[in-house]
Amino acid sequence: MVVVMAPGAAEDEISAVVARVEGAGGQAFVSRGVTRTIIGLVGDVEAFADMGLAAMGGVHEVVRVSTPYKLVSLEHHPAKTTVYVGGVPIGPDTFTLVAGPCAVESPEQTLAAAQMAKSAGATLLRGGAYKPRTSPYAFQGLGERGLQILADVRAETGLPVVTEVVDAHDVELVASYADMLQIGTRNAGNFGLLQAVGSVGKPVLLKRGMSATIEEWLMAAEYVAQRGNLDIVLCERGIRTFETATRNTLDIAAVAVAHGLSHLPVMVDPSHSGGRRDLVLPLSRAAIAVGADGILVDVHPHPETALCDGPQALVDSDLRALAAVCRQLPPMVGRG
Amino acid sequence: MVVVMAPGAAEDEISAVVARVEGAGGQAFVSRGVTRTIIGLVGDVEAFADMGLAAMGGVHEVVRVSTPYKLVSLEHHPAKTTVYVGGVPIGPDTFTLVAGPCAVESPEQTLAAAQMAKSAGATLLRGGAYKPRTSPYAFQGLGERGLQILADVRAETGLPVVTEVVDAHDVELVASYADMLQIGTRNAGNFGLLQAVGSVGKPVLLKRGMSATIEEWLMAAEYVAQRGNLDIVLCERGIRTFETATRNTLDIAAVAVAHGLSHLPVMVDPSHSGGRRDLVLPLSRAAIAVGADGILVDVHPHPETALCDGPQALVDSDLRALAAVCRQLPPMVGRG
Amino acid sequence: MVVVMAPGAAEDEISAVVARVEGAGGQAFVSRGVTRTIIGLVGDVEAFADMGLAAMGGVHEVVRVSTPYKLVSLEHHPAKTTVYVGGVPIGPDTFTLVAGPCAVESPEQTLAAAQMAKSAGATLLRGGAYKPRTSPYAFQGLGERGLQILADVRAETGLPVVTEVVDAHDVELVASYADMLQIGTRNAGNFGLLQAVGSVGKPVLLKRGMSATIEEWLMAAEYVAQRGNLDIVLCERGIRTFETATRNTLDIAAVAVAHGLSHLPVMVDPSHSGGRRDLVLPLSRAAIAVGADGILVDVHPHPETALCDGPQALVDSDLRALAAVCRQLPPMVGRG
Amino acid sequence: MVVVMAPGAAEDEISAVVARVEGAGGQAFVSRGVTRTIIGLVGDVEAFADMGLAAMGGVHEVVRVSTPYKLVSLEHHPAKTTVYVGGVPIGPDTFTLVAGPCAVESPEQTLAAAQMAKSAGATLLRGGAYKPRTSPYAFQGLGERGLQILADVRAETGLPVVTEVVDAHDVELVASYADMLQIGTRNAGNFGLLQAVGSVGKPVLLKRGMSATIEEWLMAAEYVAQRGNLDIVLCERGIRTFETATRNTLDIAAVAVAHGLSHLPVMVDPSHSGGRRDLVLPLSRAAIAVGADGILVDVHPHPETALCDGPQALVDSDLRALAAVCRQLPPMVGRG
Repeated sequence: MVVVMAPGAAEDEISAVVARVEGAGGQAFVSRGVTRTIIGLVGDVEAFADMGLAAMGGVHEVVRVSTPYKLVSLEHHPAKTTVYVGGVPIGPDTFTLVAGPCAVESPEQTLAAAQMAKSAGATLLRGGAYKPRTSPYAFQGLGERGLQILADVRAETGLPVVTEVVDAHDVELVASYADMLQIGTRNAGNFGLLQAVGSVGKPVLLKRGMSATIEEWLMAAEYVAQRGNLDIVLCERGIRTFETATRNTLDIAAVAVAHGLSHLPVMVDPSHSGGRRDLVLPLSRAAIAVGADGILVDVHPHPETALCDGPQALVDSDLRALAAVCRQLPPMVGRG
Repeated sequence: MVVVMAPGAAEDEISAVVARVEGAGGQAFVSRGVTRTIIGLVGDVEAFADMGLAAMGGVHEVVRVSTPYKLVSLEHHPAKTTVYVGGVPIGPDTFTLVAGPCAVESPEQTLAAAQMAKSAGATLLRGGAYKPRTSPYAFQGLGERGLQILADVRAETGLPVVTEVVDAHDVELVASYADMLQIGTRNAGNFGLLQAVGSVGKPVLLKRGMSATIEEWLMAAEYVAQRGNLDIVLCERGIRTFETATRNTLDIAAVAVAHGLSHLPVMVDPSHSGGRRDLVLPLSRAAIAVGADGILVDVHPHPETALCDGPQALVDSDLRALAAVCRQLPPMVGRG
Repeated sequence: MVVVMAPGAAEDEISAVVARVEGAGGQAFVSRGVTRTIIGLVGDVEAFADMGLAAMGGVHEVVRVSTPYKLVSLEHHPAKTTVYVGGVPIGPDTFTLVAGPCAVESPEQTLAAAQMAKSAGATLLRGGAYKPRTSPYAFQGLGERGLQILADVRAETGLPVVTEVVDAHDVELVASYADMLQIGTRNAGNFGLLQAVGSVGKPVLLKRGMSATIEEWLMAAEYVAQRGNLDIVLCERGIRTFETATRNTLDIAAVAVAHGLSHLPVMVDPSHSGGRRDLVLPLSRAAIAVGADGILVDVHPHPETALCDGPQALVDSDLRALAAVCRQLPPMVGRG
Repeated sequence: MVVVMAPGAAEDEISAVVARVEGAGGQAFVSRGVTRTIIGLVGDVEAFADMGLAAMGGVHEVVRVSTPYKLVSLEHHPAKTTVYVGGVPIGPDTFTLVAGPCAVESPEQTLAAAQMAKSAGATLLRGGAYKPRTSPYAFQGLGERGLQILADVRAETGLPVVTEVVDAHDVELVASYADMLQIGTRNAGNFGLLQAVGSVGKPVLLKRGMSATIEEWLMAAEYVAQRGNLDIVLCERGIRTFETATRNTLDIAAVAVAHGLSHLPVMVDPSHSGGRRDLVLPLSRAAIAVGADGILVDVHPHPETALCDGPQALVDSDLRALAAVCRQLPPMVGRG
């Protein structure tokens, strides 16, 4: 159940609703959007229904929704959201290219990758300091040292930083360095982590779980939103199917379906979807054409030495070709 | 094992190879390409290896390949194929829009749909006279009467006809009416049917099986090719996954992967992939952008009365919008 | 829509219903069960609803069902069916072991495999004369010569024969040799073939399509049943998933689910599910324990030379161990 | 790379190996098994190869394995492991029934469920205090209050407690109450959590990720083992497939495959696999028959009021029937 406050509802009206819900043993999560505030209720729905919330001051309506997500739904928030990351917009009026190394390995490699990204026209830098790896014997990332490298490279290049966080108790640390927090596919059902990134006040890039339905993906976003953070960008990165020719199966329709259900921007990760360098360009074109708000690609100055996912990293010439497509194609499909 | 003849090999040189193979109890399938003839061998590979084929007149090389398909592979046929359907090309230098009703229901409905298709700019008419339906209690198609309607509508509109065949013993009948024979997703493993359409001398539209890997799809094409017919167009139409928001999951990467493995054209069916009218346009844009050689869409003058798959059929205004995209977008991604 | 006749309805009452339906342009499929006759209607359901069928003589009820299958459903046929194959029962009161070679390769190999099967206690012989193979370059079976070998081996051993048919127009030929017709996983959506085996008067072993839901599997059975043949045995053989450690994923729950929805017997094929010899015994034990009515296993006197699926074929000692389990375990789970 | 110490290697020999690895910038994880100690190395494998480890005192061998898991593999640990939970064994010589409520809701409900479990013959109590729920609006568990209830019920009934932990930083708290820590399906790729439970000294029940391959599942176990904890029980709980008749698809073959690859015990969760009360008994029988070392089932005194997964919870009579099967069937398949 959600309480939708009227535009311009006063703070004490909001507080009064929260107090009444908490007084009845429930929890109330306040989400302040651009035009209105929404209060999500958790607890005994039957009790809430008898509490006279709809008659309280500043309340526009009380909605008992059947869709399992509310705050992120287009139905309750018909204007599309633009998320700003260190001043860089991601949303309906632009197309955003995010590039960088899969893993931060060294200052030199990260700076070189960032310079490749910047000179090609990327406006955000991605790079992992904490790497969730299937094998405990694989490179796990540099941790806080990697975060420092990213911050240094940002200072040098001016590119805001997107980086993954894998543990709820690292969220504040990562947020102190990063401009945007990424939730990876393996953590799409790590609800404590979702709540933690929802509370810390930085934009979130939420990858789809590799076996998550679109509905479950939006519910993961709802976990973030429920903690008051609506600066969420969804990212389709391929799902797990029987096909083995590609690392995952890019569910290109999911971009259009998610756009139809949610006001949040939707990006695509063509690198992890296909897992092959030669597929990054065609999948990126498909992503632009289907209406994605941006793409996120792996680049590496020397992919043959990469500690993580070298086979899918772009080299400089690949990235320039891709960047040209990112400039030319979006206007031809009605964007920007 | 395949015997690749030299360009310009004489007919009697080809016959000699065939005779030697058959004399040893094997089967030899001759495939005459634009530049060279390829002979696929079936039978005791070890025996063939000792037969001195490589030394015979006109033989360029004898290849013992590890990929399970040969005739349809790009490796052995590096020039991309253009397939002509009633004179209409499908291939790398054009983009082909095929439109029509899912099922032929009546002369009026078929003609109306064909006129919609033609006036929007489609160059081929699709329509089913034999409908494989999951339920035995659903409309199964008009059979030969439907074929006659398609032929009449072709006479009226000039659009060549693509129609499905579901039984090996109907292949000659359907081929006597149609310009291109479609193999549906449920028959992608019906090898007798594949062989029959390979023998009848009409181009084939081969849909991917809903649980077929890309390799299996190419092997299905090999079944057709092995009977001497290389006029095959592959068609990605979505695979079966856990996601239920769409009817199937369009594997957009499969277009690029198939193009990298095979010389055959690859089309996309955005109607059956998504199963929803609102997804046809975005999925078609994605198909064009990823490099598909054409698309195949359902249209219906009155989708609300359609006997088959009404929810995914385009109406006139949808089709015009789609056709505009099919004209404008391909040149922007380097096609035509 | 189905017309359920009262127990003891007369033949002319049945004929009258059929005539009225056909007179209105519909089709009526008569299915004569042990206790009652059911008539399945195909055509314009709205018209049937106005035809007064419920008031006709001998009609118990007219059912407009929402489940897409009727004749095979437990709801309309509450007694479990026992199917007899050459006198051998498959059903709730017994447990049936079917064994034999994946492919008939020669008289010697087939006889040796059949003798292995018989001496271990199998009561039916399986073996393929028509082999649907993913590759056109793989052994495709001996065809009618294979059928003759099976018939000869039946004469020698007394074991009734189960063999696959892959083309509608071979059905009569195969039925003239075989005691039970098998529909393979690739043909589970080949509806013309399903109808053909439904018309020929021999019991049918219907494998589940590798990407068929349980509901679609029962609808495939309905295609057979609708032609008047209720002697159908369902066979779970694994579905296609992302897991690659096994050839397919045996959906063991499907046995219990199908038993809850249908009156037909349900068998399991542990050989094709796992694709590995070492899994046949544990999967067979699981099949018995979950309530399967029998199992179908590959055996071969010399698996290392098998032309088809050698890695999953049992040798003599394996088969004896398995047969012992098939005798001992079913009574312990309340069967026979 | 792993260093396998000889049986009886001294502590200072172990320490010397660790010191040399750490001196070279690597990490060494010591795992003390019943018969020998294994040291897993993480870092620069090439450097380790040149360090002369094989010649050090007490070292049996240095293994550079190609399988991505080592400590949990049967190859390197040929004796099957028995894990003891509060004195209760899980392993090859017994069959363990774990029962309890999906979620701890109240002292009364938990005690009632535990008494049901105990009187039926279950030897371990399961129950969730922290519930990972797809929807943020669903009941999330009682947290530490739930742990206290479980401890109180253990005191009353004597049943050791298995409960889930969902956040790395709760591991010590949960371990202070519980006898065994459960990792749920959504956290099978939460590597920080896996490492944390590997460090805390309590046995671990590791559910398979819903889209994890068997290899990935064993690698998740390797994460736990690498921190020195080999008291791991694997639990198959169904994978995500296209089939919707069941909540998940129980991969019954995975039990046998995992037993062939790992020395760890393997249990089955028939409640979450099927998601339906009527499937718990047949799936449990299948689990026993395939060779599982135990099962884990949901019970509830009043399923109709359950806050979580009521449709799959067993009531008292169901549980008694199941428990009888758990006593009678295992000996018939050669267990205990």
